[in-house]
Amino acid sequence: MLKHNFSAGPCILPQEVFKKAAAAVLNFNDLSILEISHRSKDFVEVMEKAQNLALEHLDLTDKGYKALFLGGGASMQFLMVAYNLLESKAAYLNTGTWSTKAIKEAKLFGDVIEVASSKDQNFNYIPKGYTVPSDVDYFHFQTNNTIFGTQLKDDPTVSVPMVCDMSSDIFSRKRDFSKYDLIYAGAQKNMGPAGTTLIVVKEDILGKVSRSIPSMLDYQVHISKDSMFNTPPVFPIYVSMLTMEWLKDNGGIEWIEKINNEKAALVYDEIDRNELFEGFVANKEDRSMMNLTFNLVNEDHKDTFNKMWQEAGINGLNGHRSVGGYRASMYNALTLESAQTLVDVMKELERKA
Amino acid sequence: MLKHNFSAGPCILPQEVFKKAAAAVLNFNDLSILEISHRSKDFVEVMEKAQNLALEHLDLTDKGYKALFLGGGASMQFLMVAYNLLESKAAYLNTGTWSTKAIKEAKLFGDVIEVASSKDQNFNYIPKGYTVPSDVDYFHFQTNNTIFGTQLKDDPTVSVPMVCDMSSDIFSRKRDFSKYDLIYAGAQKNMGPAGTTLIVVKEDILGKVSRSIPSMLDYQVHISKDSMFNTPPVFPIYVSMLTMEWLKDNGGIEWIEKINNEKAALVYDEIDRNELFEGFVANKEDRSMMNLTFNLVNEDHKDTFNKMWQEAGINGLNGHRSVGGYRASMYNALTLESAQTLVDVMKELERKA
Ligand SMILES: Cc1ncc(COP(=O)(O)O)c(C=O)c1O
Ligand SMILES: Cc1ncc(COP(=O)(O)O)c(C=O)c1O
Ligand SMILES: [Mg+2]
Ligand SMILES: [Mg+2]
Ligand SMILES: [Mg+2]
Ligand SMILES: [Mg+2]
Repeated sequence: MLKHNFSAGPCILPQEVFKKAAAAVLNFNDLSILEISHRSKDFVEVMEKAQNLALEHLDLTDKGYKALFLGGGASMQFLMVAYNLLESKAAYLNTGTWSTKAIKEAKLFGDVIEVASSKDQNFNYIPKGYTVPSDVDYFHFQTNNTIFGTQLKDDPTVSVPMVCDMSSDIFSRKRDFSKYDLIYAGAQKNMGPAGTTLIVVKEDILGKVSRSIPSMLDYQVHISKDSMFNTPPVFPIYVSMLTMEWLKDNGGIEWIEKINNEKAALVYDEIDRNELFEGFVANKEDRSMMNLTFNLVNEDHKDTFNKMWQEAGINGLNGHRSVGGYRASMYNALTLESAQTLVDVMKELERKA
Repeated sequence: MLKHNFSAGPCILPQEVFKKAAAAVLNFNDLSILEISHRSKDFVEVMEKAQNLALEHLDLTDKGYKALFLGGGASMQFLMVAYNLLESKAAYLNTGTWSTKAIKEAKLFGDVIEVASSKDQNFNYIPKGYTVPSDVDYFHFQTNNTIFGTQLKDDPTVSVPMVCDMSSDIFSRKRDFSKYDLIYAGAQKNMGPAGTTLIVVKEDILGKVSRSIPSMLDYQVHISKDSMFNTPPVFPIYVSMLTMEWLKDNGGIEWIEKINNEKAALVYDEIDRNELFEGFVANKEDRSMMNLTFNLVNEDHKDTFNKMWQEAGINGLNGHRSVGGYRASMYNALTLESAQTLVDVMKELERKA
């Protein structure tokens, strides 16, 4: 039976991407994609296409940005951002586990001003009304908090370089991406499989810190080698390219945002309507369209509900241990049908209870 | 036509590995391997199997070593080694491009003593008779120099921790791996596809430097999380596991070493016998069994030879730009038949010339 994969990441990708990826493992211009040289014409083309597609989706082509696909995961960016940009102090918004980890790494390189935090309520809201000092090296935040299910809907306006971890909502909704100076995202949500991280950086913010940066951690080194300073993660980049192509062929972010909104409305409406469930996030405007966190009002239904969604072919619905309850991660490739299946199970529980 | 893939890396892997990898992209316990959570039971099993197989092949099980599969490439280890181990000074053997790059990164963290270098002859030999000081934090070298085609056949004996980049000959020949304290290798030669790096480290050498280490660069952090501190490169690790299984099922390093010796003998004998060709490496005992570098004695034959090997289905035979000529990379998965095909073409050129 086909699974409805609600995993938080790595996560569902389009079925046609899986098919093309599997085919390329068997034959990609007479070789397996797994055995081709990263310096081959074929792979250089893949890399360029991936870089161009990333910039195109973000509407950042020819605006002074470069796209890199590096290994190491988004967590590596927590320290690379600070290594490359933090000269004396930086401002961070603390909206959850990933912010907290980013702050921890940045503190090794300079002072961190936490402009606001929602830790007081287990990160169930997005702080507002904070001020970002104008004398910091940059302002860092996460657009979407994968674990807690909150999301910044608007793009902040600040007078310093704006650095953003978009790991869990990149390519899911329109934003004014040109307000951002550095965007990074682990591939393993809306972009591809685990194993590569996209960095889109405005070149003019680089080269300003006085420390010496190890080559592999230096954005300028990677830019100067077109993201091929060393052997890149070939297959994860190839599958990311396929996924970005799929998005483009179907109508881009504008197209997927509508579907994502539909899916989220469907499930949030049921969470609200159904008295057996309650949302985790305090304010509706902070609710994530990607990771929908909710709880059973009465834990007595837990075993029944768990059995029901598993029998319905749903996968990966358990919440993160720091939140508990449930988390429906509904990334770009998750279909409306899968969202409907979850709603059906929630309704069915209501009938049974 | 099936290609004889002599690429230097990423490179040929066993055909059965490609088949199993493609199948897992389509279906791995009802999901694609590309969409499963890295925290799922299924992937935790893959990771454990990969770690155990790596230690088993190196005969390092239960000897105080831990195996990690990280992202970032072997180049990331150039700096991680220094970050984690270099307190005041370290000794490096300079045998080529990769040594030179490792030395460059280490210098950011402390003093580097270059115990010997073969740079004077474009790295066409392995220096011998050097002394490694007993007061350095560690001794670093490469067993195999992918670009120049030289290889250290013996395992040095030193009184300090021994750190080794085995990217291009790991799992290809028996060594006394227990003489090494930290071994690293980019997957993309004998272990798997690009996108993950194996680190095998003796735990007792860690935790001795006074600097603070960013989490993602800290071996102890990765060890404490069983190589799952963050999202690992799931698919590259899975394919590495398949490749290590293939090696084990067929008889392990002992089995492949015999075949590798046969293949190398076949091609080196022809390089020596055939008057149109000459080897690049000065001393026969330094010749690599993995990367066989050679030149045409008379460059006039270049176009003819290039056309001939390409028509024979050979791929990736051009030498690295810093050496020129040809490089036949004959990793574990390259068959004796492919080596014979190359020899046949060399003989055919002789007949034609
Ligand atoms: C928002 C966000 N940032 C960073 C990370 C860390 O990513 P990685 O595991 O690739 O290091 C995650 C992982 O889920 C995430 O959701
Ligand atoms: C011996 C050796 N060390 C290190 C590297 C660098 O590896 P990576 O490209 O994974 O950073 C290579 C690459 O070919 C290599 O051959
Ligand atoms: Mg979070
Ligand atoms: Mg409700
Ligand atoms: Mg070399
Ligand atoms: Mg000869």
